[in-house]
Amino acid sequence: MDIVIGIDIGGTKTKIGLVDKNGKCHVKTFFRTKEFPNLDDYLDNIKKTADDLVKSLDKKVNVLGCGIGAPNASSKNGTIENASNLLWKGSVPILEKLKERMPMPMRIMNDASAAALGEMLFGRGRNMTDFIVITLGTGFGAGIVANGQLIDGYDGFAGELGHVDMTIGDGRLTGLGVRGGLEAYVSATGLKRTIMYMLSKYMVDSRFKDVAYNNLHGEDITKAAEEGDIIAQKAFDYTAKIMALALANFTAFTQPEAFILMGGLTNSGKWIKEPLEKYFNDYLLEVYKGKVKLLESGMDGKTAAICGAAALIWEIEIV
Amino acid sequence: MDIVIGIDIGGTKTKIGLVDKNGKCHVKTFFRTKEFPNLDDYLDNIKKTADDLVKSLDKKVNVLGCGIGAPNASSKNGTIENASNLLWKGSVPILEKLKERMPMPMRIMNDASAAALGEMLFGRGRNMTDFIVITLGTGFGAGIVANGQLIDGYDGFAGELGHVDMTIGDGRLTGLGVRGGLEAYVSATGLKRTIMYMLSKYMVDSRFKDVAYNNLHGEDITKAAEEGDIIAQKAFDYTAKIMALALANFTAFTQPEAFILMGGLTNSGKWIKEPLEKYFNDYLLEVYKGKVKLLESGMDGKTAAICGAAALIWEIEIV
Repeated sequence: MDIVIGIDIGGTKTKIGLVDKNGKCHVKTFFRTKEFPNLDDYLDNIKKTADDLVKSLDKKVNVLGCGIGAPNASSKNGTIENASNLLWKGSVPILEKLKERMPMPMRIMNDASAAALGEMLFGRGRNMTDFIVITLGTGFGAGIVANGQLIDGYDGFAGELGHVDMTIGDGRLTGLGVRGGLEAYVSATGLKRTIMYMLSKYMVDSRFKDVAYNNLHGEDITKAAEEGDIIAQKAFDYTAKIMALALANFTAFTQPEAFILMGGLTNSGKWIKEPLEKYFNDYLLEVYKGKVKLLESGMDGKTAAICGAAALIWEIEIV
Repeated sequence: MDIVIGIDIGGTKTKIGLVDKNGKCHVKTFFRTKEFPNLDDYLDNIKKTADDLVKSLDKKVNVLGCGIGAPNASSKNGTIENASNLLWKGSVPILEKLKERMPMPMRIMNDASAAALGEMLFGRGRNMTDFIVITLGTGFGAGIVANGQLIDGYDGFAGELGHVDMTIGDGRLTGLGVRGGLEAYVSATGLKRTIMYMLSKYMVDSRFKDVAYNNLHGEDITKAAEEGDIIAQKAFDYTAKIMALALANFTAFTQPEAFILMGGLTNSGKWIKEPLEKYFNDYLLEVYKGKVKLLESGMDGKTAAICGAAALIWEIEIV
């Protein structure tokens, strides 16, 4: 059986799995990224983990290559650059160093772009030539497919849409210091900040008057909204409204057939989804109205990042 | 000699020329669009004008096809849809109707996308795979090239960046009713509106206190700025600042190697260009800083639109 090693490098966990040509992840595992502050130790552990996974399969496998999704990765340079939630600073030549240990076809890409490739090969993007994957986790990521191809950018840094300024230079600062940046509003962190904003704005009862910022969790906000907490409901509505405006703006760029939404914040049930649909169609230009779908990911949330990473190699093999 | 007929349909003029494979426009002419309120008469006149041009060349020419650039054109549908500055309303099946009169390979595209193809084949985009053409005239248009291809969009309406909302739903209305839309700020019309805004904001002497809105012209604003008029200078600075923020935002989308600027507003000498350069580099995300060029068009302004339209056919012939 032909397989590809898919690696999802995150600030907390590094996930590794073996993915076949249909996007099925046959076996997977993870280790904690921060246990390896030294890059060489980290890469040694990736090699060891991948070798163990290959041995663990009871059939004979043929490893075609290795795809890696990581924050702030440049596909063109093979590097991770100044990733705020990783321990290795500056420009890290991860592809070159991992290839020394695992000589095989290898590609790296930022995680949202890898997710877009995953949707293109294995998920909801299979019959679409123009779509945008939005990843809503701690931050806001985007992977753009247009003309049937992933858009890489001149230097491999396309799709940094979380740092688009929505406010003519006024408004909240993102982690990268962008004033009015989208991610400061539309992300798990943005939702928490919006709870604070709503507490500043409205004098109504709310369970969140007893919760400190650092103790706020997304699932509690969903639960509170369901139980009728006005502050939680207003926070979701505000988040969905700004997200809708952002997606309407993005539509004017590449005119996607659909946005495919994935990540933690999309698990808020109707609280994001319903107002998002409503505001999005309000904000769309007339020429786009009724033509742009909002879809949920077609991939299993638990393996989507690994399969997306593996898609970097499968894309070359399949085409 | 092989040539392509290039047609630029504008609200005021319809320009037609014959363009060779090097982007040289051998002969050109125009007629006034509004003299033909009836679409059939208009298309008959296009055919007659094109035939006359071909006859006017003293060598024998082989017409390979006809490319058309027009506002609100859908490349995929072959239509012009709801163009606010044209007389024919609704969805106009212009490609089908013109082909009945001139049976030959024919393509239509919105004017800014045609300009981008022109730069790709004949201008400053020849050695670039990722760039964005910005047309600054009465309105704001954009043509996006990524991965070496023009980005069309699902339905042929990509690049409507003049209607991106810069203000979270607050601010000026564009002609299409988009609140806070970029075109309401960054265009010849936007500059005039900004003169009004500056007159509302500052109590300083200005020649524009004696000029009605409808008598304001772009070249007068440039002249006033050169002569030290504070209101004119502030208006240019404000326009450049919002444009810089917009281009910085667009960079996060497809990460172009360059923006290529064309159209009337780029003729304002240093008054747009210098503050634009400064603010643009301020606004760019760290990962993009110093990597994105701001270029002037590499095409002759008088024939750029015709050559861009002809590029629709030359693109197919040359590749």
